[in-house]
This record gives sequence, structure tokens and C-alpha cells, in this order.
Amino acid sequence: MTIFKIASISLLASTLLLAKGGIADKAHSAGLTAIPTDKAALMKLIDPKNTITDEKVALGKQLYFEPRLSKSGIISCNTCHNLGLGGVDGVPAAVGHNWTANPHHLNSPTVYNAVFFDAQFWDGRSPDLEDQAQGPMQAAPEMAAAPSLVVERINSIPAYVESFEKAYGKDVKVDFKTITATIGIFERTLVTPSRYDDFLNGNKEALTDAEKEGLNLFMDKGCTACHTGIALGGTMQPFPAVGKYTYANVGDFKGDKNGMVKTPTLRNITETAPYFHNGAIWSLKEAVQEMGRTQLGSEISDVDAAKIVTFFGALKGKKPEITYPQFPESTAKTAKPDFN
Amino acid sequence: MTIFKIASISLLASTLLLAKGGIADKAHSAGLTAIPTDKAALMKLIDPKNTITDEKVALGKQLYFEPRLSKSGIISCNTCHNLGLGGVDGVPAAVGHNWTANPHHLNSPTVYNAVFFDAQFWDGRSPDLEDQAQGPMQAAPEMAAAPSLVVERINSIPAYVESFEKAYGKDVKVDFKTITATIGIFERTLVTPSRYDDFLNGNKEALTDAEKEGLNLFMDKGCTACHTGIALGGTMQPFPAVGKYTYANVGDFKGDKNGMVKTPTLRNITETAPYFHNGAIWSLKEAVQEMGRTQLGSEISDVDAAKIVTFFGALKGKKPEITYPQFPESTAKTAKPDFN
Repeated sequence: MTIFKIASISLLASTLLLAKGGIADKAHSAGLTAIPTDKAALMKLIDPKNTITDEKVALGKQLYFEPRLSKSGIISCNTCHNLGLGGVDGVPAAVGHNWTANPHHLNSPTVYNAVFFDAQFWDGRSPDLEDQAQGPMQAAPEMAAAPSLVVERINSIPAYVESFEKAYGKDVKVDFKTITATIGIFERTLVTPSRYDDFLNGNKEALTDAEKEGLNLFMDKGCTACHTGIALGGTMQPFPAVGKYTYANVGDFKGDKNGMVKTPTLRNITETAPYFHNGAIWSLKEAVQEMGRTQLGSEISDVDAAKIVTFFGALKGKKPEITYPQFPESTAKTAKPDFN
Repeated sequence: MTIFKIASISLLASTLLLAKGGIADKAHSAGLTAIPTDKAALMKLIDPKNTITDEKVALGKQLYFEPRLSKSGIISCNTCHNLGLGGVDGVPAAVGHNWTANPHHLNSPTVYNAVFFDAQFWDGRSPDLEDQAQGPMQAAPEMAAAPSLVVERINSIPAYVESFEKAYGKDVKVDFKTITATIGIFERTLVTPSRYDDFLNGNKEALTDAEKEGLNLFMDKGCTACHTGIALGGTMQPFPAVGKYTYANVGDFKGDKNGMVKTPTLRNITETAPYFHNGAIWSLKEAVQEMGRTQLGSEISDVDAAKIVTFFGALKGKKPEITYPQFPESTAKTAKPDFN
């Protein structure tokens, strides 16, 4: 009966694939993988070095929201990677300390599912989340805090030192590396399973027919050449030098050794406008078409781009519930906010 | 037996009062009142107009954390009234849009327990939280958003409009007044009962002996002339023109009609440094001594000030647990962030 509702040849193809139960198989073949529902399997993926504990995650969460880790005392990790806004700030280029925009015109990437990336930052210069967390805290146009300031502030607050001792043992050295690594450990937990995962995990009803059609088109157009793996992006190093969308276009940032930028994840992509490393495009449909032109050398029609965007809606995942932290009080020893 | 531990005459006095169970009675006589444990009694205090509903509070909480209510899209109510930092920002004068400090050198007052104030803002120009919320959102050095921008942004996001309809009924006009009033309604729920309340409510063991001594001294020194009522501050209009601590000291702000500023609450005061309307003093002990000199015309000794500060520790209250909100996505119609 469904056949009478068919509006296009591609929907027909999709429906036939569906009839054979084939889209999920095709997705698996294209390298798309689901966030595992099995907790042990998930932990193996997000915690290969077995560093996650409840204490570290709780402390890392507190530090993630802690504005006193910035020089001014009013900017936290969450300012630019807002956990209520898809893990981003929703502005083209991050604006931080002294109201300075990122000098490379770089858009804040989402922290959600970043654990699945092979490398962090747009140029992939950082190997993991623990290492990445050291960057924005120090960067002058972001949190602008010298490591010594961060260490001094945290160590001046006994409740924080106690939390580190609880998390790492009495002999812990509460240094910059440990502080930032703890934030990274919290970030490892920020994964967002979606209906798309349910579908790949075998629930054929988890996607609507229109979403299945969009997924099929997404694969047929070749998007999975880069947007693949568990995060639909973030893998492959050096970054695939197949397209033309390099840093040469904007700012003075050069990307990786081939002048390329990392393929961003498409999970929660409907929440993370504006798009691209330079935040140049606000419309998701236009972003799809821009990628078709610059990376795949093909014009994606309005109709097809809209279908792919419909599929993207199914990538919106369930966010971990976050209780907003209470921060321990500063003491007389705590370095004062500095707005200069 | 306790008498052998006595270190000062005032502790002796305190202990004698304690023996008679008198400090709580004395506190009641001084106008100090507890946050009621009875829910109906509390609701009568915080919701006299019966506006609180679960839907409005949930929506108000979302809006409280919503950075898109600012012109830039990166500043929320919580930026300056951080619910993890005692409801303040921990800086002398608020810094907002365009990295501009409050031109009057005004310190952000805590939002916790502000529902108990007779008037809002340092000069008391606003009658309630619903009205107050209109101010910072528009103020150029704060969130810098014109009411029309706020209304446009919220109405451009269907999920927000639905939430307003759910909270107020289908005929709701999602205008600036309703948006800000909803934030005020959420803020009404931000009360923080403490051990001090337990003590006033009859649990004589809720305070330590040292805290009881501090409370006794707090009353004996005359602090309760202004720091009285349920919030230990925030009442009396026009503001008590008994002291000398006026706006004439700093900036160009004139205070109320007598040139006076509102008495701030002392609840959670250990968390809300720096102190005073101008954030001029970081040490709570020094703040106590400064008030002794300027308001009471008496020198409070280091020892006595420290005792009063010990009592203040018991005013640290239990904060409502806040689940960090998820914000609905912007649409093509949503006005873009503007950093100028």
C-alpha cells in the first residue's frame, strides 16, 4: 500500500531497500557504526585507558562549569561548549577573554561525542580530550589563564584539593595536567545515543521512512567518505585531502600538514549552527550543498539536501543529565579575577 | 563542666543564654526569622500572588540559563548570578556585553533568597523579581538585548512558544514582560534553608557553641538593626538612613532618595565575596568591621569580627538542585548573535 504514497524515484529505491531490510546493512558497509547499547562495550570505546571513575567525572564536571579557571573568573568551558546548546556556543567564532573573537575565525566544535574523534582541535594537533583541555584554558582570546594561575586558584581552595585527593589518592599533585585531564575524563562521558543508533542496532522502526531515505541519499552522495565511523566524522589522519575546503579560505590558520581541517561529527548537527570550521554558513541545507560542491564535486539539489537534513534530525541524541554543580568558596589566598 | 573551657566573657554570656535556651528567643525578638519548614507557609511567603507552577518554573529555569536572551548570545542571567557560586559572579563589578564593567561599579547581588527582599536592585527601584529581570537583560553593559530582540528570538523558536503555551495557556502573548516574569517566577524558588533556620525553628543543636556565640554578638553589636527579617537584610523602605555607607563613595549612582543602598542579605554570605554594593572588600571579617565603623560607629575587634564570621558560616544554605537545561534549537528566523 505504501507504494501509492511514493513521491520520487529515490523514495522508491529507499522503500525497496527497506523491504529488504537493507539500509542498515548498507550503512554498516559504509563504515557507519552505532553507539553500543551494551555498557561494557561503550566503556571500552570511551575509556580505553580505564581512567573513568565516578569521583573523577564528578570533579571534572565541576571544573567544566568552573569560571574561576579563567583569568577573568567569568568564563568556563561551558561558555563556549554549552552543554544545553548541543555542546557549542552558537556563534561563528568563539568570543572569550576581553571580548576577543578567535583570531583564526575558528568555530567552537561540539564537546558531545568528541571522545570518538581520533584527534582534537580543527587541525587535529591534540591526541585526546585530556590534552585538548589544556588549550582553551590558556588561549589569550579564550579563558586566558596561565597554567600557574589555574593551579594556584584550585590549590587555594581546600575543598577542591580534597576532591582531587578523593579522586586520585592522597599523593596527588594537583597540577595543570591533572586539572585539565580531569575535565577530559568528564568529557569522555558526553555521548549522545540517538534514534539513528537504535536503527543501526537493529530497530528498523527507529527511523521514519523519510529519515531512512535521507540516510540512503547521504550514503549514495558519498558523504560517508569522510563522515563515517561512530561519530560520522572525526576519524582519519592525516585528514582526508580529497576536497578543497581548507583553511586557506579564511583567517591565517593552516590546518593540518595538508592544509586540511578535521571532519566534524554530524551527531546533534541540527543544534550546532553555524557550520564549518569558520562558522560561515547558518543553514544546514546550504552546508550540505556547500560540501557537495567543494568536497564531492557535485551539485546536491534543494530537494535532496532537504532529505539529507531530515535524516540529520535523527542524529539528535539524548544528552546525559547534568546536575548543575555547586562550587566551593574562594579563600583569602585565591587569586582575584583579572579582566585585563 | 563547660565553664572550664570558657575563653572570654562574651562566651560566658553566650553560654548562660544558651543554658536558658535564650539565644533563639533573643533572635526572634531581634526580628530574625527562619525560612519555614512547612511547605504551605513557605509558599505563602515566596508566592503571595500564587503564580508559581511547575511549568513556569521549568521554563523560567531554562530562560535563566539561556544565553540567546543576550545580544551576543553568550551571556545569560547565570553568567553574573551563577547558581553554583552563591548566586553571584565573584567579581567586584559585573562585566557583561563588550567586556564592559558596570559603570556604577555595582556588584552583582545574589539571586538566592532575593524573593524575600521588599525591593530589588541596590537602590530598590524595582518592586519584585519579575520586574527586576527586565533590567539586566536590556542594560548595555550586561546582556544588552533590546526587548524586541528578546521577543523575536524566543518567538522564532517554536519549542519555546509551545512551552509558554503550556505554562500560560494557548492565548499567551509571548512578550517581553511575560518572558522576564517567567524568569522571576523561577527565581522565587531559589531559597536556601540552612542550619541557622533549623536553630531558629527549635533545634538547639543545629548551631555549634561558637556559632551561637557569634549570633549573640551579631545581635549585641546592633547588626540586626538592618540585617533582620527572614533574609537578614533586604527589608525596610526607604532604606535605613542611619549610616554613612552611601553611593557618594563610589561611581555616580545615587542610591535611593536618601542616597542609601539596600541592606544585602547575609544568607550564603561566605560564598558571595567581594562585599558591598561596590564589591570593595574581599575579606568578610573586614567587611564586618567596616560596617561597624560606618554604620554603627563602633570598632569591632578582630576577635569579635571573627566570631561573627563564624556565625555567618551557619547561614550557608542548601541550594535547590538544578538540572542543567537543554535549550531548543534556533531556526532560520532566529536573530543572529551580535557582538557589537
